[in-house]
Amino acid sequence: MAARVLYDLCAADPAVRLSPYCWRVKLALAHKGVACEARPWRFTEREALGFSGQGRVPVLVDGERVVTDSFAIARYLDETYRDAPTLFPGGVAAARFVAAWADGVLNAGLARMVVADIWAALDGEDAAYFRESREARFGARLEDVQAGREERLGAFRASLAPLRTALGEAPFLAGERPAYADYAIAGSFQWAHAISAFDPLADDDPVPAWRERMRGLYDGLMATAPRAVGSAADAG
Amino acid sequence: MAARVLYDLCAADPAVRLSPYCWRVKLALAHKGVACEARPWRFTEREALGFSGQGRVPVLVDGERVVTDSFAIARYLDETYRDAPTLFPGGVAAARFVAAWADGVLNAGLARMVVADIWAALDGEDAAYFRESREARFGARLEDVQAGREERLGAFRASLAPLRTALGEAPFLAGERPAYADYAIAGSFQWAHAISAFDPLADDDPVPAWRERMRGLYDGLMATAPRAVGSAADAG
Repeated sequence: MAARVLYDLCAADPAVRLSPYCWRVKLALAHKGVACEARPWRFTEREALGFSGQGRVPVLVDGERVVTDSFAIARYLDETYRDAPTLFPGGVAAARFVAAWADGVLNAGLARMVVADIWAALDGEDAAYFRESREARFGARLEDVQAGREERLGAFRASLAPLRTALGEAPFLAGERPAYADYAIAGSFQWAHAISAFDPLADDDPVPAWRERMRGLYDGLMATAPRAVGSAADAG
Repeated sequence: MAARVLYDLCAADPAVRLSPYCWRVKLALAHKGVACEARPWRFTEREALGFSGQGRVPVLVDGERVVTDSFAIARYLDETYRDAPTLFPGGVAAARFVAAWADGVLNAGLARMVVADIWAALDGEDAAYFRESREARFGARLEDVQAGREERLGAFRASLAPLRTALGEAPFLAGERPAYADYAIAGSFQWAHAISAFDPLADDDPVPAWRERMRGLYDGLMATAPRAVGSAADAG
């Protein structure tokens, strides 16, 4: 086993990484300056994670330590790598508030806009697993969930009011420098961006300007990440 | 004009204070240890605020300074009274995120549960103004907006997920000690509590336990505040 490995959800193209939760971890690792192999992992490769006692990513293996769950991994990194700036300059609870908002409001809104595009970026067993599990969750065909996304843009953008208002105060949620609260939200946007050409943000808004700043961080970690787009028309 | 005055929205009983935004300011003043007269003000007393250039509370008069808008007042207090601990330990933007969430999600959810109770706590011109303006906003009678609130409890409690999740990490959103993010949310709960016997929280939840801690702060500033309740049955 390599010294440090993050199991990182990938699409049919293993270079395309799409989990919002794995993106949070990769940004947290970069923030801490901790080198780590981001190993491609597919939805249906449950056995490869058997050592972690569960079947989902992110999973971080750091020497002898195995840590699961994106927030637990961030807490672990913050406690372990203390020479770098903290991921939680306003405390752990305040960052958790933002992450929980991203988990619910943001991911729920984005999922309904790109869920068929996600499927189109997968193949084989992964595509079948994704369709079956998500159609059961939504109680509808993926294409029907995603249909009419243009009409939902207004409500989606309105739901971003906390982020938009906060970004009137500072360049990042955490202030002059980004931290975990920013990474939690950026991970969600990167998830959609990695597999869909559909952009749910309006130009005349501080949110996309912040998203651009986030994409440029850490030598363009997100800006240079491969995407699987162009299949949206087929899927829609 | 007294040295320091906060114009503070009151009900028919001037001892009952109901504005969530004024409660945020009173908690921020207490946090900073800044003494201030909280002067009762009614919805229709626009002329009394003429000096502020607008017609809404909170309005803080601090010597020669007049500051409006709850968040602007908090920023002013933090910049002016620097001996006391900051209201924004995680930065201004992070606190603003939470306040904007309270403005939208929390206040919108609570309003639909207590809007007729608010009306019942008012009298005279204020009651008439409140009914007319809020019925125009909701496009429905206040009693119809509030009706069926028990059936909305599940969705309302689900919308508190960011707060509930964050409170699993620390006693307050700001960590071991409360700060503005806590006050922003506590002000909303106090608004409902001041004028309604209806409690939208479930006992088996970290949120009401946090609310109790908040109510006890600053010699029971909220816990000892007079309420106008008992009229809920008449209004519903």
